[in-house]
Amino acid sequence: MRPSSSVFDGVLARGGVAEQVSGRAWLQALLDFEAALARAQAGARIISEQDAEQIAAVCDADRYDVAEIGAGAAEIGNPAGAVVKALKAVVDAPVHLGATSQDAMDTAMMLVVKRALVPLLDDLRGAADAAAALANAHRDTPIMGRTLLQEAKPTTFGLKAAGWMVSLDEAADNLHNVRLAYQLGGPVGTLEPLKLDLGLDAPLLPWHTLRGRVGELAGALGVACGAIAKAARDVTLLPEVRERVGGGSTSMPHKHNPVAAISALGCARQAPGLVATLLAAMEQEHERAAGAWHSEWAPLNALLVATGSAASWLRESLEGLELRTHLGDDTDTGAAATLVDRALENR
Amino acid sequence: MRPSSSVFDGVLARGGVAEQVSGRAWLQALLDFEAALARAQAGARIISEQDAEQIAAVCDADRYDVAEIGAGAAEIGNPAGAVVKALKAVVDAPVHLGATSQDAMDTAMMLVVKRALVPLLDDLRGAADAAAALANAHRDTPIMGRTLLQEAKPTTFGLKAAGWMVSLDEAADNLHNVRLAYQLGGPVGTLEPLKLDLGLDAPLLPWHTLRGRVGELAGALGVACGAIAKAARDVTLLPEVRERVGGGSTSMPHKHNPVAAISALGCARQAPGLVATLLAAMEQEHERAAGAWHSEWAPLNALLVATGSAASWLRESLEGLELRTHLGDDTDTGAAATLVDRALENR
Amino acid sequence: MRPSSSVFDGVLARGGVAEQVSGRAWLQALLDFEAALARAQAGARIISEQDAEQIAAVCDADRYDVAEIGAGAAEIGNPAGAVVKALKAVVDAPVHLGATSQDAMDTAMMLVVKRALVPLLDDLRGAADAAAALANAHRDTPIMGRTLLQEAKPTTFGLKAAGWMVSLDEAADNLHNVRLAYQLGGPVGTLEPLKLDLGLDAPLLPWHTLRGRVGELAGALGVACGAIAKAARDVTLLPEVRERVGGGSTSMPHKHNPVAAISALGCARQAPGLVATLLAAMEQEHERAAGAWHSEWAPLNALLVATGSAASWLRESLEGLELRTHLGDDTDTGAAATLVDRALENR
Amino acid sequence: MRPSSSVFDGVLARGGVAEQVSGRAWLQALLDFEAALARAQAGARIISEQDAEQIAAVCDADRYDVAEIGAGAAEIGNPAGAVVKALKAVVDAPVHLGATSQDAMDTAMMLVVKRALVPLLDDLRGAADAAAALANAHRDTPIMGRTLLQEAKPTTFGLKAAGWMVSLDEAADNLHNVRLAYQLGGPVGTLEPLKLDLGLDAPLLPWHTLRGRVGELAGALGVACGAIAKAARDVTLLPEVRERVGGGSTSMPHKHNPVAAISALGCARQAPGLVATLLAAMEQEHERAAGAWHSEWAPLNALLVATGSAASWLRESLEGLELRTHLGDDTDTGAAATLVDRALENR
Repeated sequence: MRPSSSVFDGVLARGGVAEQVSGRAWLQALLDFEAALARAQAGARIISEQDAEQIAAVCDADRYDVAEIGAGAAEIGNPAGAVVKALKAVVDAPVHLGATSQDAMDTAMMLVVKRALVPLLDDLRGAADAAAALANAHRDTPIMGRTLLQEAKPTTFGLKAAGWMVSLDEAADNLHNVRLAYQLGGPVGTLEPLKLDLGLDAPLLPWHTLRGRVGELAGALGVACGAIAKAARDVTLLPEVRERVGGGSTSMPHKHNPVAAISALGCARQAPGLVATLLAAMEQEHERAAGAWHSEWAPLNALLVATGSAASWLRESLEGLELRTHLGDDTDTGAAATLVDRALENR
Repeated sequence: MRPSSSVFDGVLARGGVAEQVSGRAWLQALLDFEAALARAQAGARIISEQDAEQIAAVCDADRYDVAEIGAGAAEIGNPAGAVVKALKAVVDAPVHLGATSQDAMDTAMMLVVKRALVPLLDDLRGAADAAAALANAHRDTPIMGRTLLQEAKPTTFGLKAAGWMVSLDEAADNLHNVRLAYQLGGPVGTLEPLKLDLGLDAPLLPWHTLRGRVGELAGALGVACGAIAKAARDVTLLPEVRERVGGGSTSMPHKHNPVAAISALGCARQAPGLVATLLAAMEQEHERAAGAWHSEWAPLNALLVATGSAASWLRESLEGLELRTHLGDDTDTGAAATLVDRALENR
Repeated sequence: MRPSSSVFDGVLARGGVAEQVSGRAWLQALLDFEAALARAQAGARIISEQDAEQIAAVCDADRYDVAEIGAGAAEIGNPAGAVVKALKAVVDAPVHLGATSQDAMDTAMMLVVKRALVPLLDDLRGAADAAAALANAHRDTPIMGRTLLQEAKPTTFGLKAAGWMVSLDEAADNLHNVRLAYQLGGPVGTLEPLKLDLGLDAPLLPWHTLRGRVGELAGALGVACGAIAKAARDVTLLPEVRERVGGGSTSMPHKHNPVAAISALGCARQAPGLVATLLAAMEQEHERAAGAWHSEWAPLNALLVATGSAASWLRESLEGLELRTHLGDDTDTGAAATLVDRALENR
Repeated sequence: MRPSSSVFDGVLARGGVAEQVSGRAWLQALLDFEAALARAQAGARIISEQDAEQIAAVCDADRYDVAEIGAGAAEIGNPAGAVVKALKAVVDAPVHLGATSQDAMDTAMMLVVKRALVPLLDDLRGAADAAAALANAHRDTPIMGRTLLQEAKPTTFGLKAAGWMVSLDEAADNLHNVRLAYQLGGPVGTLEPLKLDLGLDAPLLPWHTLRGRVGELAGALGVACGAIAKAARDVTLLPEVRERVGGGSTSMPHKHNPVAAISALGCARQAPGLVATLLAAMEQEHERAAGAWHSEWAPLNALLVATGSAASWLRESLEGLELRTHLGDDTDTGAAATLVDRALENR
């Protein structure tokens, strides 16, 4: 059971991302850094293989109490120190040697992101697949096109869905390509980083206060939420569609609310403000920032959860979307269908 | 122990606010709404006194599982339905009669805010008091004034502290005066609300999609964080001051980092983006919004926690701030001291 | 003719606010500060009456070139120095005596705000009046209530309009009550300010880096935009209403687009991000901020214009709104009508 | 002379971007769309070559009054209709055939962006070059490293500058690679676009309400501002550096303010809020959005100007930066210098 359960989790923390950014997940990522550091130092003959294996053996989150680490974070302003202290209490070996707490924190952050992106991208691509299926099934199903929220001229439902698909695909590609690197610069970022075996890129320079990676990630998550919100907004507004999962309200049983699309919007709309916070946090002083760095953790976690939850909801909505057309079969849909075909072929 | 423990809690969730916005706190607030509704309906002879007391008797969060309610929230897109269902499983009485789920949610939100503001304002006023003590003690202690981050002309440390005090006091007054009302409009907001006995204002109209209260609260929290950030930023930049709580880093024992001020900044800087989300959410459609409403909960919780944590950290910083002056006693500080006296008298 | 004409002015800069935040308006406000300063110093026998009158006589924006002042602003990072230089070129008297450039800039900002609020509040109250008229005319005109964008139960159009009215009234009251003070603290803010006769409050302390006033103003403008956006969104979504000003599109003459409500949304939606920038700018270092202060001017101008333009468009929309009802007269509208009456009586 | 002169232009609109987003520039871009459309239609034998040349011949912004077009924009909520009307008044040929106003607006937006990126990237790369020169010159010049705003351990000034360089280079590369496409989908986006010869990509689908391109651009501009702000912040905080352009204040001639870095911050800090607005605007309804689309223009213009101005100021700051070292030559700078070399080689 996730420890951070709230009464909103079913709506705002759907899917697999929340678990990947939990306190336990961060703790494990911090421990993974310490284990990888020890092994790299053993590889470079800085510490002994034995010491490295001793350290690695205790780098398991189940051995420690998240709440205790969290409370200990107050001492130096981040949890890395408390993790090192906890490790040193159980192992007599050179833990965290030569590293600074931000090395651990930044590497952990990148690991958390990498792991959170797995379920996030699965749901985002799942939503795109569902949109593709709708586009394919309804490539020439006529539906009223609406501009400025007024009825305009016919289009096809397939073309609407193809648009959702293209936007979701592009957003997923961007997220797939974000730059994720470990951090290992030492106290003032002057160390040439040892190679850490964590599935992350080796950075060109220590990047303690060079936060382009965080800013780019934030932007890509914001764009993903924008793509999700566009599709979800259409679902909430379209009289022609019906979510399989939607349900009647308790007080008004005749209603069939598009709960999935609405929840997707409730998640996705949190993104722009969180992106702004992360971009503002790029202004980091000298070799370690006093506050801007600390202001990244909560918004990044929240942004990952919101995006993942929104993607999961949209997938649910689109996978079960039923269409009831109103327009007659004599509508000319050729041009729209051609566009749909091209978009599907281009996938 | 707080259930939502994370490795960041010691830094980002300091003070008493986090507990007041926890899953359990929201659940209790939702239950408080149902109990107050039943009692008001008994008072108006809509249901029996006996039914009302039966309902009120089970409106205790300890009887229910937060995680289960949270999971159930997915069904209609908010947790109020799951709460009603849980109540109906244990009591045979007319729960939630005539109300809509947003009545419960909005009232609970206002209760949560009211309760969270108690520790928040305590710490904010505590920080202002600490600033006042510094202003009083150092009304004519000369210190170099700095403009555009360059040394300029002398001022007094007391005047700097008086400025912090005035800003914190004003921010606290604004927060103290935010408008908090219950909600009871029924399915489409056409009910004349019964009076609920919850320590909240009676609204002029049902305000399901009239979110001025939320926007004003967001603005007031944002301004409070701005006032906190100004003081904390000065502490981090001033070579003349030293936090009692700050400590040396593990790798560099000669350092004395202003951990409290830094953490205050790490919290406060999350505010502007969260305020933006809440202001954007004011655009709510018709009688109940599809998404904008749902996008309020997480940012509001986060904003309350960030503001409360920032206030708690700043109080810690200022209560233990030590000053080491550099300027000679021959500096003319009369004008600055006069300003300090006036600000202190005006409290 | 306004010098800052753009191809978007008709949509994004409607109403009287744009002129009040123009380059010329800022220049005049800067000159008004210098004139008021000279007169106050004459009143305090710091300079002669003759000098003061000489200075005041040349404090007329028509005598100077806005573009030249703007170019000169690069020298010290704000236009106040260029204004002082321009004045000293035409008058042989002690201009700007004892003041710092931020004294001039902050006072000018508050004057600009005060003047911009006149047309802004006129349009905002005009929109509220139009909503009140709709509420009164349609207190018991039945219309379908919609929740989560689905048809729910009937309400009255009057109650919808009364909700808009209440929100707009509250937003206008908040804006009317914002704290506007002059600034006169000298180089490091240690001066006890002389009284300036500019229709602005005397501040308790110099507030060069205490930006609560700016943050509160930003919040109030953001809330106003939220209230406007809610009403405008309803207008764009309601099939039952038609704007008198709306028009057919060139390519689709059968359409009648709610251009006024759409444009109001286009303006109002710019607010949340701008508010975030102004709140983030509250973190100002020491006695004069290096960058945060400078980051206020453009967003504040943009926020004032966006709010004023949104208010002007909403007024246009609501003053000409035509209603075509669909629901039968047998709908029970008593409860809704009672709420409308109460809201109107409470104005 | 730029028509939109304000008293802030020297500070907030430095460099060549402002001219590229002016009213006149937008007007020319709108005309360029109409000319390209006519030529494409002539190429496809939809209209005659003669008609196309007649249209193209009058597509020169100098022939029209920006203010008049701007005023006319109020009619349909965007200026494209007014441009078409102005063209039809001077040429008897099929202007804007089959296109919708958003085709013209979106294509013009992309042209404006493409043209604004030229001076923007020139200054951004110029700033990176200046950082590279500093990195090269000072690869092993020792300087105190500072963490959490406290003195920590030595680094080299070259490594600081190399960090700025890498971040600026990455930001410039991202901006260089943003996706810019024309728009030509017709009233409801069902047209297969003709190829327009404007130096823009052909889109896979009409993207009237698929705003990934705008969101990605916004993110890239936000990241660029973050990279600029980091470097500028360091300059304002470093006691060891002095801007050649900085100057003494009028009231305090002993000061030497880093005006360029401060102004860069004043510009760059506007970005996060503007990015948030553009990301929020991605939620666009159906085939043309009612408000979200309209909310893009002003923030995008402002974001381009802010980024360009920030880049220009930072370039000015770094090109004239003088270093006065404090640390002795016996500091070991080998590791830092190695990192610098690697970063420079990697350019």
